[in-house]
Amino acid sequence: MSLRALLTGMSQQVEGAYAVMLMGYDCIAIDEVHVGTPGFDVQMMIVEYATVIKEIQRTVEVVGAGDMEEITITTKQSSMILRVINEDLFAAFVLSRDGNVGKARYLLRTNALAMLQALE
Amino acid sequence: MSLRALLTGMSQQVEGAYAVMLMGYDCIAIDEVHVGTPGFDVQMMIVEYATVIKEIQRTVEVVGAGDMEEITITTKQSSMILRVINEDLFAAFVLSRDGNVGKARYLLRTNALAMLQALE
Repeated sequence: MSLRALLTGMSQQVEGAYAVMLMGYDCIAIDEVHVGTPGFDVQMMIVEYATVIKEIQRTVEVVGAGDMEEITITTKQSSMILRVINEDLFAAFVLSRDGNVGKARYLLRTNALAMLQALE
Repeated sequence: MSLRALLTGMSQQVEGAYAVMLMGYDCIAIDEVHVGTPGFDVQMMIVEYATVIKEIQRTVEVVGAGDMEEITITTKQSSMILRVINEDLFAAFVLSRDGNVGKARYLLRTNALAMLQALE
């Protein structure tokens, strides 16, 4: 399955999905799928957060709390899940505030390998 | 109820709890309760993350995604939940990787007001 098809499938399985993407830590998306009208700049949000992730990863290493796996950020209007895929890539899911965060997390976790395979 | 008693009660209600604290964005704890032996420096972890929260809050404002409410960070060894209480304070819960994150989130949310009242 192509990466685009995979991301599209993931976005369709979660209520309230705004965007699903696979991205490098350089903030350049490998591919992304957008759905609905979030009312804020999803792209800019993720690029900004990518910088923050790097900082959190550095902290986790310094403290010795084991490799980072996932970050969830909840605001009044949205939820966003960032999942580390490997040392180069992370996947992100952006949802409306009442979206199904549990399912989005599950899909990011279970599709991690498939996303990598779709790049080969 | 005193803040110390409140935090102690919260820590006792969650399996796998390592620490519960109320903290300013200047990284100085108002009060904190530690439990068990995490195997990493919880204090240092939270201080480092407090810096990151400020950055995420700035991002959320710039993007217009509504006020920040909560951040959850999961590593191979731990989970950590940071909840915004007001413009000066946040509360943090640090757990083992197999701790009950759902209950910790619930307690942070439902005790937000009580933590503020304990300061008066």
